[in-house]
Amino acid sequence: MRVKTDEGFEDLRAIWMEDENIKMIDQRLLPHELRFHTVSDHHEVKEAIKKMVIRGAPSIGAAAAYGIAQAILKGDDLKETAEVIKSARPTAYDLFYAVDHMMENGQEKPKITAEAYVDSVVSKCKAIGDHGGKMIDDGMKILTHCNAGALATVDHGTALAPIRHANSEGKDIFVFVDETRPRLQGSMLTAWELFNEDISHAVIVDNAAGHFMHRGEVDMVIVGTDRVAANGDVANKIGTYEKAVIAKENDIPFYVALPVTTFDPDTKSGTDIPIEEREGEEVSKVFSKYIMPKNSPVMNPAFDVTLSKYITGFITEKGIFSPDKIGKLL
Amino acid sequence: MRVKTDEGFEDLRAIWMEDENIKMIDQRLLPHELRFHTVSDHHEVKEAIKKMVIRGAPSIGAAAAYGIAQAILKGDDLKETAEVIKSARPTAYDLFYAVDHMMENGQEKPKITAEAYVDSVVSKCKAIGDHGGKMIDDGMKILTHCNAGALATVDHGTALAPIRHANSEGKDIFVFVDETRPRLQGSMLTAWELFNEDISHAVIVDNAAGHFMHRGEVDMVIVGTDRVAANGDVANKIGTYEKAVIAKENDIPFYVALPVTTFDPDTKSGTDIPIEEREGEEVSKVFSKYIMPKNSPVMNPAFDVTLSKYITGFITEKGIFSPDKIGKLL
Repeated sequence: MRVKTDEGFEDLRAIWMEDENIKMIDQRLLPHELRFHTVSDHHEVKEAIKKMVIRGAPSIGAAAAYGIAQAILKGDDLKETAEVIKSARPTAYDLFYAVDHMMENGQEKPKITAEAYVDSVVSKCKAIGDHGGKMIDDGMKILTHCNAGALATVDHGTALAPIRHANSEGKDIFVFVDETRPRLQGSMLTAWELFNEDISHAVIVDNAAGHFMHRGEVDMVIVGTDRVAANGDVANKIGTYEKAVIAKENDIPFYVALPVTTFDPDTKSGTDIPIEEREGEEVSKVFSKYIMPKNSPVMNPAFDVTLSKYITGFITEKGIFSPDKIGKLL
Repeated sequence: MRVKTDEGFEDLRAIWMEDENIKMIDQRLLPHELRFHTVSDHHEVKEAIKKMVIRGAPSIGAAAAYGIAQAILKGDDLKETAEVIKSARPTAYDLFYAVDHMMENGQEKPKITAEAYVDSVVSKCKAIGDHGGKMIDDGMKILTHCNAGALATVDHGTALAPIRHANSEGKDIFVFVDETRPRLQGSMLTAWELFNEDISHAVIVDNAAGHFMHRGEVDMVIVGTDRVAANGDVANKIGTYEKAVIAKENDIPFYVALPVTTFDPDTKSGTDIPIEEREGEEVSKVFSKYIMPKNSPVMNPAFDVTLSKYITGFITEKGIFSPDKIGKLL
């Protein structure tokens, strides 16, 4: 991803390995400060994932792959390492996949295996951008929710890959960025990525997405996903369901961008996807100050499930598929 | 409204008069501190409205009525007083109505006339509660957006009046409180009112409303409104449109609570209602700190329009009406 620096631009990934250390952009400090976080054992990998230094299913997968590689290089107990890393977050399928992949294939050449895994993540995202970018016409206005950008996927992004691709072809596009409460990944991260790429955009409160869709100002919605069930139901950041229903109501195409590995054939439908309930303070406090009565309870589901009937298509590295073609694809 | 104090409970209004002084709850300090603000001349009335010590169209109307009464009692220049008070905020219809009403009718018995005006506002809200409360069954879960509570309407509220009524009858109810970005009137004010009434509730991010509706956890949605067009289209806080569409999609009744004066027969439909675009800093900053890149643009519509087809009924002081009965009602 392109990042503006004092000297001009730099091309960065969200996470990478240097010798036995794992380095990552500290996403908690964005958009105000670009600082790198170093992780040196699997407990720190878990903490970095849990505390959202790094977030987004593919970037979490990369952290897990590097984490196992690091443990192998250090001669740590691998069974314990795998358990610790897998326990970092419950919903992201990539986390489990990356750990299992490294346990099976990484024993001999851990770092090379991890790099190959991460590179394949990145090249899939680039391919998602190539396929999805073709659908974006000059002048289009696209709405996105949360951050399914390079920060979430090591590079390029899933939802942001088609947008980056269209921009790189010189198309004049505009992006509505849902701020995405409670953690504000839209305003904090997506806007930061678009600002760094000089892509025209505006941040809106999540409440305003429907207003702009209803007024005909949105041509397409593209989001990422954390897991897709075999029937095409999609788990993604809380609020995705609302945007999908409103898009359908207003005949706006609603796309989900993802690598094929995010399809989970073992999960039958959305009702089988566990929804992580996160701590109330994500909602009740901003900058450590309460924005509500201290004693009022909070309910804070991190994800929701969008039924496949609301989804126009899945943008993958293998092409674009409607929900009824998933069976064939898998 | 019931307010918890160190000694127990107090029954308060958002604003009232004591001798020649006007007293009000300082809403800028809620939910963290209950402090009363005293106003002793029309310049201070203007400042209190302008600085949002008091807010909500009916409460602003009450402040204006008391302000004129105070000026008459003090022998102030009434023409100047009316001008000053009217200039406090440009759009609140109740403000102008209350000033004109007092200038016409309040000269002889200013305090009694102002009290009668304010009492009629409150009794309409109470009637809204009586009618709407009957629809709320024991065990129901209700979702509301923004603050259409006692703070905004002197007492009882519009959307919160049926909830207060059901609670006063001993019904076991639960309220989902949308935090209502960007200004957070849900988490700051509605949650505070419910906490003080000991009504079971939880604050959720606006994004989570759809999730709970889709999971069958919401039995009814009740919101307030700023203006209803002759065809039943409703202008209300940004995000209302999304909640209404999602409610309809999930067969959840969606009610709008309002005094009949909020129907505007001169506005044909929702497209004729101008939507106020407010300053970007309401979105980009929380507690004076940026929550997004400083240079990213913001779009900040304060209201949206919900088409009448999404609305189950209007809860008014005269009873409950479906959108197709508005013509008859007016």
